Amino acid sequence: MAEMVNVAVDAMGGDNAPGEVVKGAVDAVNADRRVKVFLVGREPVIKEELNKYTYPPEQMEIVHAEDVIETGEPPVMAIRRKKDSSIVKSMYMVKNGECDAFVSAGSTGAVLVGGQVIVGRIKGVERPPLAPVIPHVSGVSLLLDCGANVDARPSQLLQFAKMGSVYMESVIGIQNPRVGLVNIGAEEEKGNALTKEAYPLLKNCPEINFVGNVEARDIPMGAADVLVCEAFVGNVVLKMLEGVSGALIQKIKAGMMSSLRSKIGALLVKPALKQTLKGFSTEEYGGAPLLGLNGLVVKTHGSSKAIEIRNSVLQCIAFKEQKINQKIKEQMVLED
Amino acid sequence: MAEMVNVAVDAMGGDNAPGEVVKGAVDAVNADRRVKVFLVGREPVIKEELNKYTYPPEQMEIVHAEDVIETGEPPVMAIRRKKDSSIVKSMYMVKNGECDAFVSAGSTGAVLVGGQVIVGRIKGVERPPLAPVIPHVSGVSLLLDCGANVDARPSQLLQFAKMGSVYMESVIGIQNPRVGLVNIGAEEEKGNALTKEAYPLLKNCPEINFVGNVEARDIPMGAADVLVCEAFVGNVVLKMLEGVSGALIQKIKAGMMSSLRSKIGALLVKPALKQTLKGFSTEEYGGAPLLGLNGLVVKTHGSSKAIEIRNSVLQCIAFKEQKINQKIKEQMVLED
Repeated sequence: MAEMVNVAVDAMGGDNAPGEVVKGAVDAVNADRRVKVFLVGREPVIKEELNKYTYPPEQMEIVHAEDVIETGEPPVMAIRRKKDSSIVKSMYMVKNGECDAFVSAGSTGAVLVGGQVIVGRIKGVERPPLAPVIPHVSGVSLLLDCGANVDARPSQLLQFAKMGSVYMESVIGIQNPRVGLVNIGAEEEKGNALTKEAYPLLKNCPEINFVGNVEARDIPMGAADVLVCEAFVGNVVLKMLEGVSGALIQKIKAGMMSSLRSKIGALLVKPALKQTLKGFSTEEYGGAPLLGLNGLVVKTHGSSKAIEIRNSVLQCIAFKEQKINQKIKEQMVLED
Repeated sequence: MAEMVNVAVDAMGGDNAPGEVVKGAVDAVNADRRVKVFLVGREPVIKEELNKYTYPPEQMEIVHAEDVIETGEPPVMAIRRKKDSSIVKSMYMVKNGECDAFVSAGSTGAVLVGGQVIVGRIKGVERPPLAPVIPHVSGVSLLLDCGANVDARPSQLLQFAKMGSVYMESVIGIQNPRVGLVNIGAEEEKGNALTKEAYPLLKNCPEINFVGNVEARDIPMGAADVLVCEAFVGNVVLKMLEGVSGALIQKIKAGMMSSLRSKIGALLVKPALKQTLKGFSTEEYGGAPLLGLNGLVVKTHGSSKAIEIRNSVLQCIAFKEQKINQKIKEQMVLED
């Protein structure tokens, strides 16, 4: 039998903790025998939630942590001071090898800082990118970096491309993934100082399948499997995707309710539409891995429901079994 | 009677020239007695198109220009060499005061370069931003800069905010428009070097109504009337808006065609939906003005149809009658 995949889950993180987080963890262990979840946080409240469900007991464990890092807290300070918080305790479990991965819907800043400071970077990785999977019309792309570290260097964009390619190939199963540089024009000479310097680095790298610049307009059409950019741009891409989808769906619902005729039509199209739009929701794909660390850290939306926690836990299985970090290490060694 | 508003229109610019451009110009003069259009380009083809329509002859004039600047040409070179092109000739008509404004669906690069080099900047304006009006759920915002000049300075963002406020108040009619800084977090200290420096400049400027940082997610919800950012970010915001809308509508159409039930529903919701989505299309609002020049230059989509040309020509009326450039000049004088 294969080794178990041990995943620490931040039971106190996110707007819907601990209820939805515990439910998502239960759903995950019920869905796959290969995963064991360590629910980290205040034992009494976790226990109360767990009592609502049935699940294989050998796949679930509570690890008590008294403190909680709030979303508004300055991350560096919080990580340093709150040693008995669910985030810090989970990070140490990954660092010490007790767990393979950590999933949190809590403070993005604290997760990013904790990942770097406690779990630590793979040797050679300049900056660990936060890499959400985003939907496009006919599949998904990996967008990196969406983290808190803005103003990246060109060499970092190249590393993002390599790590992203490994992830897309091994976890999502896309052979020879197409790497695109997010830019404001298709031609090689377009862009700002960063993209102009990054372009030749990407073009001349034999380990990736670089397809050139990708304009933001073509991202939702699936112009590349791996999209590299610095974190400010990545954040704008991700948030526009969420914002425009949300706004448009709101408009469409209002439009459908505007007359009796359209109301009847709405009833008829609803099931088909719901199915279609599900594929275009960022929540369907689990959280965003922070790549390039000595272990896996996954950040999910602050508003995560059980489905996103479940999917995030389950994605840790492929990450471990496909030996992603081993492959990233090999890429970094090639650089030397 | 008020003075006529004279608008030069690039009859050769864009994917649908001259047909749609001429049609849009005709629609504009038929819609408003206050505007006169100068169709600039190859006389024989323009004449042929014009012959299809009726319009008040005193509101339409053809100005022959032999050359055409193609979209792929390096802009600086094209502006310098093609003196008899529709773009260069029109720009000189604005510079010389024969026209108040110039509308083009042609090469963005050539229009941006020509605007700065030929028409020239208002004294004190560091950089003229390209400022499209973009839709949100309950109205429109002005997004600036979306031009070709990336890597802006903080002082330029402040100028964008002032010019954008004048435009939104006087042309779009929004009193005391809310100015937002496009950023990756709501808190003052968030962002990159540029936004961190720009924030206090915006906050301490008494002439604008600064409402703080705006995350991309909230742009489609209408979080601000004037959105300031450097051009790379502006381009990503604009293109994501177009791309996500397009992709989502494609998915929705496919979803509606997926079963007999949903097909029937689609027929019923179609009219209401069409009306709703029209308000969310970037083409409904005319082109993007290039602000801060000694005259008005409006860039429309390369794929412009007649409706966009028409709306772009008509927006020149408010621009002149509301004395936008006089107001921008006053703002720049205040800076000294």
